Amino acid sequence: MSDINRVAVIGCGTIGMSWASLFLAHGLEVQAYDPAPGREAPLRDFIAVATTSIGRPVPADTTALRWCMELEDAVGNVEFVQENGPDAEDAKRTLLAAIDRLTPAHSVIATSTSSQIRSAITADCRHPERHIVAHPFNPPHLVPLVEILGGADWAVERSTALYRRLGRHPIVMRREMRGHIANRLTSALWREALFILQEGGASVADIDDAVRYGPGLRWAIMGPYLTYHLAGGPGGIRHFLDHLLPGHVKRWAELGTPVLDADLEAKIVQGVLEALGDRSIADCMRARDAMLVALASLSSAADDAQDDLRGDA
Amino acid sequence: MSDINRVAVIGCGTIGMSWASLFLAHGLEVQAYDPAPGREAPLRDFIAVATTSIGRPVPADTTALRWCMELEDAVGNVEFVQENGPDAEDAKRTLLAAIDRLTPAHSVIATSTSSQIRSAITADCRHPERHIVAHPFNPPHLVPLVEILGGADWAVERSTALYRRLGRHPIVMRREMRGHIANRLTSALWREALFILQEGGASVADIDDAVRYGPGLRWAIMGPYLTYHLAGGPGGIRHFLDHLLPGHVKRWAELGTPVLDADLEAKIVQGVLEALGDRSIADCMRARDAMLVALASLSSAADDAQDDLRGDA
Repeated sequence: MSDINRVAVIGCGTIGMSWASLFLAHGLEVQAYDPAPGREAPLRDFIAVATTSIGRPVPADTTALRWCMELEDAVGNVEFVQENGPDAEDAKRTLLAAIDRLTPAHSVIATSTSSQIRSAITADCRHPERHIVAHPFNPPHLVPLVEILGGADWAVERSTALYRRLGRHPIVMRREMRGHIANRLTSALWREALFILQEGGASVADIDDAVRYGPGLRWAIMGPYLTYHLAGGPGGIRHFLDHLLPGHVKRWAELGTPVLDADLEAKIVQGVLEALGDRSIADCMRARDAMLVALASLSSAADDAQDDLRGDA
Repeated sequence: MSDINRVAVIGCGTIGMSWASLFLAHGLEVQAYDPAPGREAPLRDFIAVATTSIGRPVPADTTALRWCMELEDAVGNVEFVQENGPDAEDAKRTLLAAIDRLTPAHSVIATSTSSQIRSAITADCRHPERHIVAHPFNPPHLVPLVEILGGADWAVERSTALYRRLGRHPIVMRREMRGHIANRLTSALWREALFILQEGGASVADIDDAVRYGPGLRWAIMGPYLTYHLAGGPGGIRHFLDHLLPGHVKRWAELGTPVLDADLEAKIVQGVLEALGDRSIADCMRARDAMLVALASLSSAADDAQDDLRGDA
């Protein structure tokens, strides 16, 4: 059980606004800071929409959100900092050192980064052990995954307890790999998606549909390992390794790497616009968010059913 | 609109049984054949469960399913053959030549293969132009994707019309690439999932969860191209290419290929069994199938809402 009740959200771009919404929707107090001017109003607008779509709307006049004009004011009295500054090594390194200096030594500092190395960005911190990587998937208030890399065990434990309380699904990496897990996997898939387009195998719309109406449906339910366990029939993963893995290995030899040139970029942009038709980006985001909310409730109902089943056994 | 009312299902393993269920659930007559002994009873059992889970149960005493003792009897009078024999070049080549000889020349012969080359397996056919690849995703009665490779235009058109009538989502490849689209993408992701395990980045259960609670949720809603269009913010895919693609390209250089040895295989098997806990494969399949049915209805409701939205515009 997490005992954290007040958090600082540092950096209020897309990811920071989403984190702030999630914290507020679950009754935490949020102290928000962003050095860029004019960020308070967009943050309040975002929160109104996001917390409504989560189903836990926060009144606009709530005192639970406090906008801070100085970094020190935001992080000086909190037990947890969610940092979402620009994802560049120098910027992170400077910002984390400042936060580290201004925050009580027992508090946890969680950084959202898709590609920085933890030891590098905390190099100037006096208490690097309480800094963790906590990488969410966009949008964090709707997608449960948070990839964690410690830090001290106590920092990892306090943060995973907090994220679980917010309905997130934290996973703890055993060692650092650039891009963590999910982004490495998406990069591998994306490279091949570009290669197929460049080779003329299918259109952008058809490649997208091949994912959405095929493996994507299954990956919303279970990851690749369990999927292949089921693909092995009654013999499970052992049968899969003996009989179906060789097909994958052969296929690996034919996968490719695209050549990123102007031709391919034009194909990508044109293909996306054709696939989009007359839908706007805002329409697509609204549709995606509504589906994510529905999927989350479907998925948690399935988990409950599974737990009941285990209870019966 | 497809005018096909009677189909032959040749090869009644996992994929054939699933296709037969889908055809019957949508009111088609099915003539089934499998050279292996004792396949009729499992087929009828499978159909009872599968059509119930689709929500269109077929009575056990239906005359719509006719079990055939000879290949000729099954394919001699149909306009559409769904072939699901063993996925090996020699076996397919022999079987397709026999079907080709026994089936009226105007009928379509659709082959389920994940890795054979169409021109090679139809090499002994007199009418190769009416042979198409129609590769489904397991289980075909619940996962909508069907990857099509022609054949003559008329054969592609007749089969896509038939599959659409059955609620499937056919996509037509522009040229042959081994593994088609979806399996190439899954192979690319799977290679990296094995590499992360081998490098000790995370456990089997955590890698699976990273997919399920992160990108998998989004891929059930939209493919990678549209996902990255939204990730580009108001600037869409153009902004993504300029600002976020370089991060992917850098990451590609750090993705790996696992070394398939006994150590890794043991890690995979042990990891899957740990992730599975006390659930049986049959329990997992039931849970997966229930989720696929729920997802399909969610997805089609979202498509309808989207169409309404466009109608309003």
